[in-house]
Amino acid sequence: MAGIKDVAKRAGVGVGTVSRMLNNSGYVAEETREKIEIAMRELNYTPNELARNLYHKRTGIIAVLVPNVSNPFFTEFVDYAEAELYEAGFKMMLCNTVKARNAELEYLDMLNRHIVDGIITGVHSLAVEEYKKIKKPIVALDRYLGDHIPVVAVNHKEGGRIAAETLIKNGCRKILHFRGSTAVESPYHERHYEFEKIMKENQIETYTYELEWNRFDTEYYREAVEDVFAKGIKFDGVFAVDGLAIECMNETIRRHLKVPGDVKFVAYDGTFITEMVEPKVTAVVQPIRALARESVRLLTNLINGKKYENKQVVLEAKLRKGNTTIR
Amino acid sequence: MAGIKDVAKRAGVGVGTVSRMLNNSGYVAEETREKIEIAMRELNYTPNELARNLYHKRTGIIAVLVPNVSNPFFTEFVDYAEAELYEAGFKMMLCNTVKARNAELEYLDMLNRHIVDGIITGVHSLAVEEYKKIKKPIVALDRYLGDHIPVVAVNHKEGGRIAAETLIKNGCRKILHFRGSTAVESPYHERHYEFEKIMKENQIETYTYELEWNRFDTEYYREAVEDVFAKGIKFDGVFAVDGLAIECMNETIRRHLKVPGDVKFVAYDGTFITEMVEPKVTAVVQPIRALARESVRLLTNLINGKKYENKQVVLEAKLRKGNTTIR
Repeated sequence: MAGIKDVAKRAGVGVGTVSRMLNNSGYVAEETREKIEIAMRELNYTPNELARNLYHKRTGIIAVLVPNVSNPFFTEFVDYAEAELYEAGFKMMLCNTVKARNAELEYLDMLNRHIVDGIITGVHSLAVEEYKKIKKPIVALDRYLGDHIPVVAVNHKEGGRIAAETLIKNGCRKILHFRGSTAVESPYHERHYEFEKIMKENQIETYTYELEWNRFDTEYYREAVEDVFAKGIKFDGVFAVDGLAIECMNETIRRHLKVPGDVKFVAYDGTFITEMVEPKVTAVVQPIRALARESVRLLTNLINGKKYENKQVVLEAKLRKGNTTIR
Repeated sequence: MAGIKDVAKRAGVGVGTVSRMLNNSGYVAEETREKIEIAMRELNYTPNELARNLYHKRTGIIAVLVPNVSNPFFTEFVDYAEAELYEAGFKMMLCNTVKARNAELEYLDMLNRHIVDGIITGVHSLAVEEYKKIKKPIVALDRYLGDHIPVVAVNHKEGGRIAAETLIKNGCRKILHFRGSTAVESPYHERHYEFEKIMKENQIETYTYELEWNRFDTEYYREAVEDVFAKGIKFDGVFAVDGLAIECMNETIRRHLKVPGDVKFVAYDGTFITEMVEPKVTAVVQPIRALARESVRLLTNLINGKKYENKQVVLEAKLRKGNTTIR
């Protein structure tokens, strides 16, 4: 295979000149460029990308870490993030951390070893201390990982308020509220705090069911729903993440209760699955495409040398009325 | 930052010795290894991965190309493939080709330029000629891309037969059959051929609706379903891919027809969404986890120098009875 020396020889220029041209690292006359290009074509020479990366200390690869790509929120995020990264000239490496416990640390290590140029992490990390040590480009999706790591999230407090007010407006008096594990430091807890605060202010009875850490699978959701019914908990309004709201709704219908007549549902995230089932689920919708766009924008800025301290990009969640609520 | 020279100096050995140890490229005495390790720790030296990759011509990265990760079949495939690749010591680069038309060729180029060690492609490629030129590790998921590229797929002929027999056994006499675009060369067409052959043998009226190329989104599925109803097509049995079967079922129910009383449905793929809706959809289930495992196994073999000619790994599809058929 032809190398850079062969190209230089055939073009009748020095190796340094070819290198300058390939790396855009200095002036090369137009006429000389043409000679080099012709020589490259004639010799069928492809620059060795690894060698060039070594020179630039850039690989053009971004790692996106999510707990589980099969969770529809993360499926949609990954889908949009890949497209946004591609637009910005990057390829996406994807890591599912639920399936391999130490993978997260391995990816942080890859950032240190120049294999990836940056990381977008939506992982439910318990390794916050590890992130604090790293001074390289990282953006957190909906997580707090230290003051130097910018956060992109929706206004969950507002999201929680919208959900609470919707169920109250629909006349619900006995609420079943599924909430995420408090082991994770995330802005998303605010939706739960706000939801419960409003219920309390309105003296509405609320049963709170705390989910286990890092469980997002349908099977677990079914177990949780069975558990609720087995405990004999009565409710006329439910607030839960999409997949869980759907499982709970299906079980409610199987038990011959009417939706929305007897029980109302408000889901959180508003991914495609809430529009795939019948009745369509009323949902607080996260703008997932915008979350992906902002994450990529901040990360690209970091890679280009910008610094952020205590930066938070906050986007708005909106209600999309389906047929699991009456008003 | 400390370099290999600093490590060599501190350990009191030559640079070549440190290099041999880092690259496993020759004998280094145990005692010397220890000295080098201590020096590396003391200097906080991390080997530059890019430099090592350059040496080994391996990056440990595999590209997985899918039309759209949001399509549940590909979501599940990507999820399992990532885990299987991780087990085999590889990281996964993910590319959605529907969103960026030329991305597929770009990834083939990355394979040539040693940025990725191999490719698993499930893309509905029209660029088959490009694949024929490449002599590097590629595995095709459910696609024909030339004799030198092994194919992993399920026995679609059998899958089509199971679907046809199920609808016949349920007494259907007017079939609506949604089929993929014939522009793509794929083993999956066999399910459609077999399905229609059996319907013909049994003198059952069948309306075949051919879908557009590379459209897998819910919005398009809804359009297709509306189109069918607008055309006044009558049917008592439907065979379609998961998402489309669900959209068609929902519209059927909205039009006050009973499922499975008036219309029976058999979905193809059997992903999580067929179990998320009510009634659960009877489906021909593809063993997606096994498809991922086999794809990774063949690719790893190719990377390690094995050659395959006309290789096809064929897995079995199975019926999972839901509540959209009676028997």
